[in-house]
Amino acid sequence: MTKEAIIKEFETIAGAENVMTGETDRHAYSYDAAVLDSVMPALVVRPRTSEVLGAVTKLCNDNGLPLTVRGAGTNLSGGTIPHPGGVVVLTNGLNRILEINEADMYAVVEPGVVTAQFAAEVAKRGLFYPPDPGSQAVSTLGGNVAENAGGLRGLKYGVTKDYVMGMDFWDVNGELVKTGSRTVKCVTGYNLAGLMVASEGTLGVFDKIILKLVPPAQAAKSMMAVFPSMKAASETVASIIANKIVPATLEMMDNFTIRTVENFRGAGLPVDAAALLLIEVDGHPGQVADEAAVVERICKENGATELHVAKDAAERDAVWQARRDALPALANLKPTCVLEDATVPRSKIPAMIEALEEIAKKLDLTIGTFGHAGDGNLHPTILTDKRNKEEWERVEKGIDMIFDKALSMGGTLSGEHGIGLAKSKYLAQETSKATLAYARRMKSVLDPKGILNPDKIVGAE
Amino acid sequence: MTKEAIIKEFETIAGAENVMTGETDRHAYSYDAAVLDSVMPALVVRPRTSEVLGAVTKLCNDNGLPLTVRGAGTNLSGGTIPHPGGVVVLTNGLNRILEINEADMYAVVEPGVVTAQFAAEVAKRGLFYPPDPGSQAVSTLGGNVAENAGGLRGLKYGVTKDYVMGMDFWDVNGELVKTGSRTVKCVTGYNLAGLMVASEGTLGVFDKIILKLVPPAQAAKSMMAVFPSMKAASETVASIIANKIVPATLEMMDNFTIRTVENFRGAGLPVDAAALLLIEVDGHPGQVADEAAVVERICKENGATELHVAKDAAERDAVWQARRDALPALANLKPTCVLEDATVPRSKIPAMIEALEEIAKKLDLTIGTFGHAGDGNLHPTILTDKRNKEEWERVEKGIDMIFDKALSMGGTLSGEHGIGLAKSKYLAQETSKATLAYARRMKSVLDPKGILNPDKIVGAE
Repeated sequence: MTKEAIIKEFETIAGAENVMTGETDRHAYSYDAAVLDSVMPALVVRPRTSEVLGAVTKLCNDNGLPLTVRGAGTNLSGGTIPHPGGVVVLTNGLNRILEINEADMYAVVEPGVVTAQFAAEVAKRGLFYPPDPGSQAVSTLGGNVAENAGGLRGLKYGVTKDYVMGMDFWDVNGELVKTGSRTVKCVTGYNLAGLMVASEGTLGVFDKIILKLVPPAQAAKSMMAVFPSMKAASETVASIIANKIVPATLEMMDNFTIRTVENFRGAGLPVDAAALLLIEVDGHPGQVADEAAVVERICKENGATELHVAKDAAERDAVWQARRDALPALANLKPTCVLEDATVPRSKIPAMIEALEEIAKKLDLTIGTFGHAGDGNLHPTILTDKRNKEEWERVEKGIDMIFDKALSMGGTLSGEHGIGLAKSKYLAQETSKATLAYARRMKSVLDPKGILNPDKIVGAE
Repeated sequence: MTKEAIIKEFETIAGAENVMTGETDRHAYSYDAAVLDSVMPALVVRPRTSEVLGAVTKLCNDNGLPLTVRGAGTNLSGGTIPHPGGVVVLTNGLNRILEINEADMYAVVEPGVVTAQFAAEVAKRGLFYPPDPGSQAVSTLGGNVAENAGGLRGLKYGVTKDYVMGMDFWDVNGELVKTGSRTVKCVTGYNLAGLMVASEGTLGVFDKIILKLVPPAQAAKSMMAVFPSMKAASETVASIIANKIVPATLEMMDNFTIRTVENFRGAGLPVDAAALLLIEVDGHPGQVADEAAVVERICKENGATELHVAKDAAERDAVWQARRDALPALANLKPTCVLEDATVPRSKIPAMIEALEEIAKKLDLTIGTFGHAGDGNLHPTILTDKRNKEEWERVEKGIDMIFDKALSMGGTLSGEHGIGLAKSKYLAQETSKATLAYARRMKSVLDPKGILNPDKIVGAE
């Protein structure tokens, strides 16, 4: 088919108003939140029904057109950067919550539903959807599943993976595959829903997703503890976990991040603190009281100089707003902001913090460190200007050193941001050549023409 | 190679003392706990190291020998019945707990570690491994992962899937694939560990498994509630969940099961009760007290005639022993015992109970019903004699009717027993032809000669 004939075909299937070929539109979907070069797609299409989504998939496959599904494009690893000349499939026309079942505690959603909007709807029915990635205000549930998005509550509540009960997805031929169930136990066939999680759109195109819901905690207490050193703060984290307290959230900020956040919003953070821990325990009121007391004791034993307990919802919100400001505040400082997510077993947090400080010093880099300390999932954030070649080389060296360090501690390259284009070259280093080969064999048979989000995760062969 | 040469090769790799070819040995591994015909393997091998396991896998593939890995053979769907002329690989020589990491709350185990022994070791370190399949006293962790074993605690704590953080496995070529991590967050590459769960040994041979551990509950309260009808008991179940109480365990027994269990052990169960609920709430002491009070109220509102609260650990153990006796007691009654595990969304439990009673009546079958009511995962157990052809036909009809009913309620064919050989013919009925085709494509490329536990899950093509 000629290019014009193919565009015509997309228009017939999806409606002319849902097919965009203009340069401005294509440019808008040529990049995502990763620090990578943008790539112009040939065409952008917005399916508004499940059937159209399947037909678009089939059309792409029939014509060998690379297809990249895009939710909000907030991912940080290039998972939604299109392939040159490919098709971007938007999910924002598929944004209906199809069912929230209170009695059986699950929901069925289309992939384009916005995470925070979904969580709010669920909360209205007296239930709780825990995964809360940093981008939740705009990110979509389909994108969250594709990247296995984490968030602040991973420590106690797990990540997106832990809430996917089942899914329908379109295979590359435009046939509907069904996996998982509305039941809390299901072992009927391969765990394809589990395989879809974190697959970044390379093995199928998500249709309906069945998500697990849980009862909300009855009570919660948020605290902010001030430490004289990152070492003291990080040892506190390890000690809290070792004492078998599992806070809902256990976040850390270094002095650089604290000062940057304070300049950004002026929330009254202690700008002289070497480190902050932001901690929330939740559950039964009795448990919250007991756990808060233990956390308080451990903080003091590890040298906390101040401990503020949020007195009401407004103070609690302020604590978490400060944490959520970390990335935008840091990103504001310099033209390029590289947010990493190398992750280590939790007890290795103190050693990792030390290593990050050494790397920053050795390479003369500006690294702000904050993140999900309770998960071992730190976000060392390198502030730079990619146009400065000499500095960028040091940044790349720094990233390599961070990865090496995390792996040497039994950690992983990516806790929650995904592999995408950005980290595929490191995959075999963490796993093995056989692992990459196994993944590529699987990909080759499930997507023989290689049209499903090419090069993501497994790289170009 | 000749048969003798191949045996010689196995002996060279694994040691002659670990290769069994005698008829008695082969017979011992020709069947499992499913009601299916036994199949004699050609050879049984017991690798004692990870490297031998990999070499055995490669040898089988090189020679096109069907390979079935076997833990304790307790699965109920034929997942460990060997292929005619194939090789059974025992994991009981790979039964070391390699690491229990208290600070980071994970363990690394070999696949042949016995579930209950592992749980006990974990408990000694003050941690908790929740999955507790009925066969836990003998079942292996590798088998649990292969079948995604459930158990009594699925309701609150999830199933085996929820505890697999990562895994090394041997691909069919004898190359080691590594997936997942010791970190609580990891998105490095495809979620192959998730894919391995419930894959019944058809996609790879499990080596080391990384399992998540959690802090144990501080307190627990076990209760037994007596009901005048299964309807009242099942409505109580739905009501407890709808009231946002998630008990650790919420089990049900019908009158037939109660009487059978009482005859089996004489534990003092109320033999005139139409139905029993066995309930345990756990967590912070305050939470346990509050939840127990709500459960008690709901039981009474739904017509419970008696409610016994276990006063101490001995009484608590007696409650759960009675529940664990259900299957052996029922299995004792008749030559053939068909234990099903069709599962429905929890709110559909009352309707499912009604349907089971109708099916038993209509087909004149003896069905004892017990199981994980809180999960929607009942175990209707048909007592029969497979040699009685006329009755066996009615049993098969009954099984079909149970599946149809579960599917019509949005349920699934198998909550926790797996597909194996027993249910592969039903797979496309629950999912779709495209789902089966997708699974078969994947299997065909990851195991081109089809040697990894042939015909399980996807059936013979």
